Amino acid sequence: MHWDDEKLMLRALEIARSGMLSGKGGPFGAVVAKAGEIVGEGCNEVTSTNDPTAHAEIVAIRNACTAIGAFQLEGCRIYTTCEPCPMCLGAIYWARPEKFFFAGTREDAAAAGFDDEMIYEEIALSVGERRLPSENILRDSSKELFQAWVDLPDKITY
Amino acid sequence: MHWDDEKLMLRALEIARSGMLSGKGGPFGAVVAKAGEIVGEGCNEVTSTNDPTAHAEIVAIRNACTAIGAFQLEGCRIYTTCEPCPMCLGAIYWARPEKFFFAGTREDAAAAGFDDEMIYEEIALSVGERRLPSENILRDSSKELFQAWVDLPDKITY
Repeated sequence: MHWDDEKLMLRALEIARSGMLSGKGGPFGAVVAKAGEIVGEGCNEVTSTNDPTAHAEIVAIRNACTAIGAFQLEGCRIYTTCEPCPMCLGAIYWARPEKFFFAGTREDAAAAGFDDEMIYEEIALSVGERRLPSENILRDSSKELFQAWVDLPDKITY
Repeated sequence: MHWDDEKLMLRALEIARSGMLSGKGGPFGAVVAKAGEIVGEGCNEVTSTNDPTAHAEIVAIRNACTAIGAFQLEGCRIYTTCEPCPMCLGAIYWARPEKFFFAGTREDAAAAGFDDEMIYEEIALSVGERRLPSENILRDSSKELFQAWVDLPDKITY
């Protein structure tokens, strides 16, 4: 199995540039490959699809999972043109690839006007310290729900 | 404007339970409301749609943004049956609601077998310390791309 990591990243950069120039969204692209071959691609589509979750990595992961018919990217590598924001890094953990590559860093993204660094700082804070208010209510009802899940037979875990 | 936060959370809990029982995915639900009225709902659909990003909050945010025709949830509140994982918390920051409510905590989720807590720990580590390998390549090419974005006229920022 041959992985040409630079070639795959160059493809992600190409997708990022064409997506940006055609007005799909921000300057970000991503590629998912399995056994060295591309199985999913995506560029940022936030502003053109009214979807704040349509970052390149999320789009590419969704496309790759659809293509391979699985909710896990086993044995895959992800190539993203910028260090993933916390949303996308979380998505990468849930997708469970073997490795990911990034070109720009979160500092590069911040310098270009993106909030990634701020979100990293916020996520590390405890609930009460964040600038975005949140509140815990009806916890007992949630516990009943989790217990129903634990007791559920024949469930598919992930 | 009246917000019945408990009623909206109870709706999220109902969606979570019916999604779980109908085999859509894990025991999670979310509701997005604007001016007290529901504008988007979602349950976890990871295993039924082969989409590791289809957590309840992501699904609800996407549905709400489609419904209101915007990529920002200005003046909205999000009700999620469990403290958001880093992916979903990141998505909430990008969607920019005014506040969010959660029922279960990340500890409750971990006790029911979900990886949220592990991902929170991983995200806080530096790139080289994480269990998931990653590598920075072609950073200079990314810098050119970001500069092209900065120089782009008439772009929609987010």
